[in-house]
Amino acid sequence: MKIALAQINYHIGNFESNTSKIIAAIENARSAGADLVVFAELAVSGYPPRDFLEFNDFIERCLHSVDKIAEHCRGIAAIVGSPTRRAEIKGKDLHNSALFLSDGKIQAMAHKSLLPNYDVFDEYRYFEPYREFEVIHYKGKKIALTICEDIWDIGEDPLYTINPMDELMKQLPDMMINIAASPFHYEQARSRKEVILSNVRKYKLPLFYVNHVGAQTELLFDGGSLVASPEGFVVDELNYFEEDFRIYELEDVEEAVMPEGGNPLGLINDKIALIHDALLMGIRNYFGKLGFTKAILGLSGGIDSAVTMVLAARALGPEHVRAVLLPSAFSSEHSVNDALQLAQNLGSPYDLISIEEAFDSLDHTLQPIFGDLPFDITEENMQARIRAVILMAMSNKLGHILLNTSNKSEAAVGYSTLYGDMSGGISVLGDVYKTDVFELARYINKDGEVIPENTIIKPPSAELRPDQKDSDSLPEYEILDKILYQYIERRKGPKELVSMGFEKNIVDRILKLVNTSEFKRFQTPPVLRVSTKAFGMGRRLPIVGKYLS
Amino acid sequence: MKIALAQINYHIGNFESNTSKIIAAIENARSAGADLVVFAELAVSGYPPRDFLEFNDFIERCLHSVDKIAEHCRGIAAIVGSPTRRAEIKGKDLHNSALFLSDGKIQAMAHKSLLPNYDVFDEYRYFEPYREFEVIHYKGKKIALTICEDIWDIGEDPLYTINPMDELMKQLPDMMINIAASPFHYEQARSRKEVILSNVRKYKLPLFYVNHVGAQTELLFDGGSLVASPEGFVVDELNYFEEDFRIYELEDVEEAVMPEGGNPLGLINDKIALIHDALLMGIRNYFGKLGFTKAILGLSGGIDSAVTMVLAARALGPEHVRAVLLPSAFSSEHSVNDALQLAQNLGSPYDLISIEEAFDSLDHTLQPIFGDLPFDITEENMQARIRAVILMAMSNKLGHILLNTSNKSEAAVGYSTLYGDMSGGISVLGDVYKTDVFELARYINKDGEVIPENTIIKPPSAELRPDQKDSDSLPEYEILDKILYQYIERRKGPKELVSMGFEKNIVDRILKLVNTSEFKRFQTPPVLRVSTKAFGMGRRLPIVGKYLS
Repeated sequence: MKIALAQINYHIGNFESNTSKIIAAIENARSAGADLVVFAELAVSGYPPRDFLEFNDFIERCLHSVDKIAEHCRGIAAIVGSPTRRAEIKGKDLHNSALFLSDGKIQAMAHKSLLPNYDVFDEYRYFEPYREFEVIHYKGKKIALTICEDIWDIGEDPLYTINPMDELMKQLPDMMINIAASPFHYEQARSRKEVILSNVRKYKLPLFYVNHVGAQTELLFDGGSLVASPEGFVVDELNYFEEDFRIYELEDVEEAVMPEGGNPLGLINDKIALIHDALLMGIRNYFGKLGFTKAILGLSGGIDSAVTMVLAARALGPEHVRAVLLPSAFSSEHSVNDALQLAQNLGSPYDLISIEEAFDSLDHTLQPIFGDLPFDITEENMQARIRAVILMAMSNKLGHILLNTSNKSEAAVGYSTLYGDMSGGISVLGDVYKTDVFELARYINKDGEVIPENTIIKPPSAELRPDQKDSDSLPEYEILDKILYQYIERRKGPKELVSMGFEKNIVDRILKLVNTSEFKRFQTPPVLRVSTKAFGMGRRLPIVGKYLS
Repeated sequence: MKIALAQINYHIGNFESNTSKIIAAIENARSAGADLVVFAELAVSGYPPRDFLEFNDFIERCLHSVDKIAEHCRGIAAIVGSPTRRAEIKGKDLHNSALFLSDGKIQAMAHKSLLPNYDVFDEYRYFEPYREFEVIHYKGKKIALTICEDIWDIGEDPLYTINPMDELMKQLPDMMINIAASPFHYEQARSRKEVILSNVRKYKLPLFYVNHVGAQTELLFDGGSLVASPEGFVVDELNYFEEDFRIYELEDVEEAVMPEGGNPLGLINDKIALIHDALLMGIRNYFGKLGFTKAILGLSGGIDSAVTMVLAARALGPEHVRAVLLPSAFSSEHSVNDALQLAQNLGSPYDLISIEEAFDSLDHTLQPIFGDLPFDITEENMQARIRAVILMAMSNKLGHILLNTSNKSEAAVGYSTLYGDMSGGISVLGDVYKTDVFELARYINKDGEVIPENTIIKPPSAELRPDQKDSDSLPEYEILDKILYQYIERRKGPKELVSMGFEKNIVDRILKLVNTSEFKRFQTPPVLRVSTKAFGMGRRLPIVGKYLS
């Protein structure tokens, strides 16, 4: 039996595009003599469709797409993910389903049993978990068909009370097929393959796995669809961060032998390289799916905007990224020069616009109110906000999307200005700690200087008052980032952090900064997610809370 | 048996305050001879604690609070809501529990079985549903103790597959006690009482019901704790929108007779009056729980900022609300006069600051870029953003929180400026359609003119270009709001809307505006929730989606 895996970049709610991509892959698979072609979870709608699932009209369009796709399943079968309606009165109205299509219609269905409802996932919001399990019979083979999370509950501290594969094994299947929507973070490719290998080792069956690829705003899908052998190794994996399509002979997979000295996990890329590639895809798809081509950003000469600029130039083409240098009275000469140098290195268009006149006029406008109150954080924020007014004006008038350049460390502690440098359509580095931004800069420069060396080696500064340095207000990033990682990603509390060796007064101060900055993060752009815990939909905290604050 | 109901305004994560309020109420109840005092769901932590529940440290503090409270339960019992840890390996680690405390310790527990996970609720994200049911024995009585949603699944299209009260009835309880965290919307008091009466009628038992009161950022809890008779009527209800404490004799409730001609539902207030009172509480608690006293807002002379101003003045005291009039070249004289008149009517401080100088300087700054490109939406947005810069500067320098004045209609269609009039710490009217803002204005003026009549009767205008009116860009609000309500609150699709009699081209245009404005709403302040479907945590939609857009 020949099985094709179709790894596609879907677009949420874009039924026309999703359906035609699926049908094209079916035609391809048939031409190549495949018996079965497998698509990802909720392929017809794109993932995650979120509250669109609450609209009857949306579900109808999904089901209509399935019908159209089924018409093309003649002489070949397809497995396609779609929401389906339940007939039972008790429980929610929908299932998250894998539909087995052949001979022009739906021949069988499997519904998702384990519905992830943590971090960025909200599946129990929409779907009723399934509790009955049946293998699918096709051309003399029995397929154990599951959906994403269904095969993930295989560890020692199960999150769920039932295990779908354990149930399906009672019917003696010949293979496992799992269709997924498994979003990227920099450890996910490894975790995913470890989970898949745990399954093939436990059940002694080959596994065909199809994931989404492409970005849906903050969620990045890295692809990495694969085929695993019952012997416990990855036989082959599809490309990461791009669409791909491959066909396998079932017998070849069953009989595959791991190459001498091979890694059962296959290729595992370096963290910084993964983040780099994921962010390029995130930027490219955000613009592409919204129908925009041009980005704009404020280029300060600092490292965050420099790295954002390079990523955008690589994603969109340097000619489509416009850098705006917006010096104030406190900007150093080297900052302007470093920024200019970067724009020139990339060959991107740039503008130099002083904010001094606008600052002076606003300062003058506020003079009757502020009198002789001293310069303070107000005037620092004002500079950042004037820059945002200028950037947004250019964005409005000239049709760019403004890129946010904040990093995760400053977003965490609120070292940033709401409606100022926290503005933008999408936050490129909002899930990358400052210490990793430096690593990204080094990675970008690995084949030659793109980002001026001076941008990388000078002490970080917001340049909003004379001789300001980040380290005046914050601990060194080496310490700050370690505490933030333990608190945000690992959910360690103050006692655990102190027992890990961090100083109590620094821990208390940082956790308080994080928790009292929730109101700021509430209003920030979506953040391209590259870690296990990004700010945004996956991290939900109260604003008026009073905990460690 | 004497049962006390304690309706308390908790503060999320403020264990010291929550615990001492609970202990004080226990002491009160004991002094008054009560046998049992009942508190709300997740009382020790406040509701919703959200992802704080993922921190071990947070759970430890909850359990430590329970221990402290239990020490005070001598000679009296208490029912208190808290998260608890599960011993079982399979499934999630936590239960949402009602703890029965007496003789200084936890004597019994009930755990929540039906975990709401729709709209603003995320309980399945944290808790494992409970599937075993046992009544609690106390002083010769059997108590069927449930938590909020556990009694809500009583309709004809059940959302869950099990009904906790049906199970508990097998043990022949004498009464029902339900502890809740049931947030306000303008139809909720009625729905809640209808559900409670369905329960007492079905099970023929008295019901004691305790809810939260007070605001937690966007979620407003209206209180309305109550006692219902097995005969099917509300015997007594506690105050709405404020803390309250009452004691009932069980026998009195069992034998209560509905007054001739009484409404079994008790008091149901008018929609606009409810919204008014809820918003006052929402503003007051947002400031109080964050430790702020002073608000600032831009007062345009239009109805949205006028209504916001009055609500803030009533919530915080007129002397604590600073109005800033920020006219541009396009502001009409009557707008400035209407705004001045309102500030004077309220006796609030105000400032008049022209934005013309700042606008001209930014216009001049951008001249080298924009050349002779015509005035367009860019310059409209610039005015709104300059106002935000000024308001945020005053807020930073003088210690105010900026109030957002956008209404739900404009937030829905994106008729507003990101980082401009969409700024603020909290959105007061973001869940109130424009037509209801007019009703609120009339309600505010019911005992005499507070808001100048001219503000109410003139055609709405953003005054961002000469002679602009909202109706130049949008359908009349009478039509717009009806379509928005059907689409947003009722989730009707385009076909259903057309079949309801709305014009297809208007429907298509409005739904497209709503869906393509998602990126703007993503970055707006939290919205005080007064309807069944507010923008914010209860409405989750993709930004790069392509559906009806």
